[in-house]
Amino acid sequence: MAKKPNKLKARLPRGFVDRSAEDIRATDEMLAKIRTVYERYGFDPVETPAFEYTDCLGKFLPDTDRPNAGVFSVQDEDEQWMSLRYDLTAPLARHVSENINEIQLPYRTYRAGWVFRNEKPGPGRFRQFMQFDADTVGAPGVQADAEMCMMMSDTMEALGIARGQYVIRVNNRKVLDGVMEALGLGGVENAERRLTVLRAIDKLDKFGIEGVKLLLGKGRKDESGDFTEGAGLSDAAIGELVRIFDSPRMDAKIDRLVEIYEKIENLSKELGIDYDPNLEIDKDVEKHFSKQERSDFSQSPVNLESYSEIEKSVIFGNLGLLSIVSSRFNVNSTFQAGVRELLDIACLARMNNYRSDRIKIDLSVVRGLEYYTGPVYEAELLFDVTNEKGQVVQFGSVGGGGRYDGLVKRFTGRDVPATGFSIGVSRLMTALKNLGKLGTSDVVAPVLVTVMDGDVAALGRYQKMVQDLREAGIRAEMYQGNWKKFGNQLKYADRRNCPIAIIQGSDEREAGEIQVKDLIEGKRLSEEITDNITWRESRPAQVTVKETELLATVRGILDGQAEDRQRQNEG
Amino acid sequence: MAKKPNKLKARLPRGFVDRSAEDIRATDEMLAKIRTVYERYGFDPVETPAFEYTDCLGKFLPDTDRPNAGVFSVQDEDEQWMSLRYDLTAPLARHVSENINEIQLPYRTYRAGWVFRNEKPGPGRFRQFMQFDADTVGAPGVQADAEMCMMMSDTMEALGIARGQYVIRVNNRKVLDGVMEALGLGGVENAERRLTVLRAIDKLDKFGIEGVKLLLGKGRKDESGDFTEGAGLSDAAIGELVRIFDSPRMDAKIDRLVEIYEKIENLSKELGIDYDPNLEIDKDVEKHFSKQERSDFSQSPVNLESYSEIEKSVIFGNLGLLSIVSSRFNVNSTFQAGVRELLDIACLARMNNYRSDRIKIDLSVVRGLEYYTGPVYEAELLFDVTNEKGQVVQFGSVGGGGRYDGLVKRFTGRDVPATGFSIGVSRLMTALKNLGKLGTSDVVAPVLVTVMDGDVAALGRYQKMVQDLREAGIRAEMYQGNWKKFGNQLKYADRRNCPIAIIQGSDEREAGEIQVKDLIEGKRLSEEITDNITWRESRPAQVTVKETELLATVRGILDGQAEDRQRQNEG
Repeated sequence: MAKKPNKLKARLPRGFVDRSAEDIRATDEMLAKIRTVYERYGFDPVETPAFEYTDCLGKFLPDTDRPNAGVFSVQDEDEQWMSLRYDLTAPLARHVSENINEIQLPYRTYRAGWVFRNEKPGPGRFRQFMQFDADTVGAPGVQADAEMCMMMSDTMEALGIARGQYVIRVNNRKVLDGVMEALGLGGVENAERRLTVLRAIDKLDKFGIEGVKLLLGKGRKDESGDFTEGAGLSDAAIGELVRIFDSPRMDAKIDRLVEIYEKIENLSKELGIDYDPNLEIDKDVEKHFSKQERSDFSQSPVNLESYSEIEKSVIFGNLGLLSIVSSRFNVNSTFQAGVRELLDIACLARMNNYRSDRIKIDLSVVRGLEYYTGPVYEAELLFDVTNEKGQVVQFGSVGGGGRYDGLVKRFTGRDVPATGFSIGVSRLMTALKNLGKLGTSDVVAPVLVTVMDGDVAALGRYQKMVQDLREAGIRAEMYQGNWKKFGNQLKYADRRNCPIAIIQGSDEREAGEIQVKDLIEGKRLSEEITDNITWRESRPAQVTVKETELLATVRGILDGQAEDRQRQNEG
Repeated sequence: MAKKPNKLKARLPRGFVDRSAEDIRATDEMLAKIRTVYERYGFDPVETPAFEYTDCLGKFLPDTDRPNAGVFSVQDEDEQWMSLRYDLTAPLARHVSENINEIQLPYRTYRAGWVFRNEKPGPGRFRQFMQFDADTVGAPGVQADAEMCMMMSDTMEALGIARGQYVIRVNNRKVLDGVMEALGLGGVENAERRLTVLRAIDKLDKFGIEGVKLLLGKGRKDESGDFTEGAGLSDAAIGELVRIFDSPRMDAKIDRLVEIYEKIENLSKELGIDYDPNLEIDKDVEKHFSKQERSDFSQSPVNLESYSEIEKSVIFGNLGLLSIVSSRFNVNSTFQAGVRELLDIACLARMNNYRSDRIKIDLSVVRGLEYYTGPVYEAELLFDVTNEKGQVVQFGSVGGGGRYDGLVKRFTGRDVPATGFSIGVSRLMTALKNLGKLGTSDVVAPVLVTVMDGDVAALGRYQKMVQDLREAGIRAEMYQGNWKKFGNQLKYADRRNCPIAIIQGSDEREAGEIQVKDLIEGKRLSEEITDNITWRESRPAQVTVKETELLATVRGILDGQAEDRQRQNEG
């Protein structure tokens, strides 16, 4: 006798999950809405496979807490290494480069797909997750970045997220690069250190300003005792940096400027006049700021007067812009280029009615991926949720992206500037569920034809009832478990929430009749629910009809149930 | 100076492909139609991730021509091996087992997803491909298998594949197992050899009957000189086996029976009478078969008279059934069980009007996967195509499945019988394209707003036109490439097949006007196409309108173009 093998344990590797019907339907609904926006913006779908050669993907991941640098890799037969994609951007760059002679630039595409990270899984942190990306490849100007920000904003609103519940925050890598240059961190030899600085700042949401300061300096020990090496900046340099990226919290007086700005805007709304922020802003500054404060502004190396009216209006309407325009670093050419680009983005957004409540310059946005070269942007949800530690926090980022002018050049050697962003599909879905924006699915469970007799002729007849219902477009099934325990059949119908059960025993069969049970009404009557639809006359919970009346009876009951549901939703 | 790195070569690993917009849209359209059928049958979506622990997947793959047995595997941090799923069935068994206490059986679910095979890629043979599965878990009776066959049939027809262009072929592993038992290949010690036999038979389409005979005997050398070890059966045993699975080709007299059957059916159609195959069949057998032939039948160990009328009718209507019912092996209990199940499936199908032109018993169906335990079924497309060698062949299988009663038991130790099938999504899509059943996409390319001036104020105005069009639901974009070469903008519009280009230079800007170019009409006029729509008055290929008339003008042109397309499709 062969030895019986040990029973195998059914389990998933950590960081991977199954998806329920509800989640799949909600995701599909959400993706369809997003797709509609992207299509309207002129983007077409293009997809790449899960595997790429490891060298094609490059090493641009934000975190490298695993030996093989955060990716899943296998060696092919010819000994070349392949990796599962960790995002959808690096594979797109490979795709464009491989087909550069056939592709018409600018190349505007979108794609939803699974990506894989070989990282330590945690709450809400999976090793396989879905991203939904859109990219314009072959687009040198920041008008393409501005368009991406507008599209993210439109996407949020198409999903039912109200204005004020989200914001698209925009920064530019060149701004912080300029500061680092000015602080002596320029040049190829400091590339790694600059990345450490960026990744430290990227942790602002997670660790707070004090945590980031530690990461910019000597380093930080986390709760578990693990130590993360810092960037080793001096206290003075850290102070300068913090002043840039943490301006909202540091510069109280700029906060006051914004207050004023908002006051004007609100007043104009109340009066119902078309608000032109250029009109009064300078006078307001003079009126509301102390002499000392005005003097601080005038010490700024930049003459605000040199900006056009529309530029001034967005500068004063946007805290982040005001902070960098008036920064002492606005003499460094890299910094200046970054400021110019941010200003252009803000102007383009403003001219298209995307004000700072939708698209906002914010110098704390970094984005952890290494390949960004210019503008970076992030969609942030502003409503409060309770996190896994029980703390009330803002929901935070659901996606973002930026300009990656170097990715295609790695392959082609020629400049193919590009910009795009990625939405974290599960995270966004969690958010929409929190907001009640992804409806409970309106899919009705199937009508169940029960089985009272298991010989082939009887089964064929039951199956025929099912096929007739299906042919009429009604979801239906025959009970496929062990039919001999009739109680199990009704339990199944109950747990599946079947709307109707069909029963035909041998007596009914001989009489050419069928019992049709309204399971929803039955449940309501048996539970004596006194809900807001009890006023209507109850339907009978069960009827016996001729076989020929099966279809009409089932349809009648389903219609009645649908009306009840609608009445309840309206009630 | 740092040395410039060598330029990286953009390439995909062999066996992986990118998907074009057209393919993605066609796939989505096809999946939606399939989903509608599955939902109507009462199935709900459930999905599992790409990775499973290797031991949970098991080794059930049809081919093992790679060192690590056909799968992609990586070792996790805790040294457990994980593999990318090679199908969707093994992961479903894991999912059900892991959640067996929460899941209400029977559990009826579907899922579309990518699967991975670490095999030698070839024409039409990829290492990543999509399957679309449906399964009923916790269904002991063959009525569940019969339902699967009906659902496959309905799916084919929902996709526009006409009756007669496809057939669902059904077999039962127990039939061939019974033959092998009778030939002395029973018992645990012959398990591996039985699998070799099954896999040999599975190659019938690929290698023909002579090739299969070699694989059943000493082995077969392929064109490249590679030798595949055979099952080592005797010539006599091979003859017996071939007689079972290749009955259509071997038994001319049974072919004649079928001819008669078809004659009766056709005649009844001509006369417009409701055909009952029970009526005349026996007489026809007597009339049309020689004495010797009738004697051969009467030597059959089975008395055909013992079957019910409906059973007799399906036996005579179904070549495969007739062949096994009258086989000398129909005394072996495993064989008999298989025949009984096939007969039940055929009866259930027939009672629901799925005749042998839709669901047909065919003993050559094997399915290569090791985990099947009973009925196996396959959807085969019958129309001719030219293969990569230039030969005209039947399109062949686009999916299949079977009963896998042991898969959940591996984990739970308890019997959880199950059945289900898988559709090969790319293969089916290729077939539908061949049949012209997946329409050229009706997605219209975006309206292009060209850029004549690149300062921020101008860009903001162009972008505003685009945003206004989008808000009105019109697909539109601003040119995002280098705007200075205007020819490139028009080339882009042409290659992208944009329907309209909007142009506003500084003169028009001052006059508050816009040029609107009808690019489709322009192309038609310039090419002097004398197609079937030239009879209508041509539209102007270009108009200049006031800025305020932009939306109405664009909408008017798009409507005109849509009418032309419709007229052309109808013409």
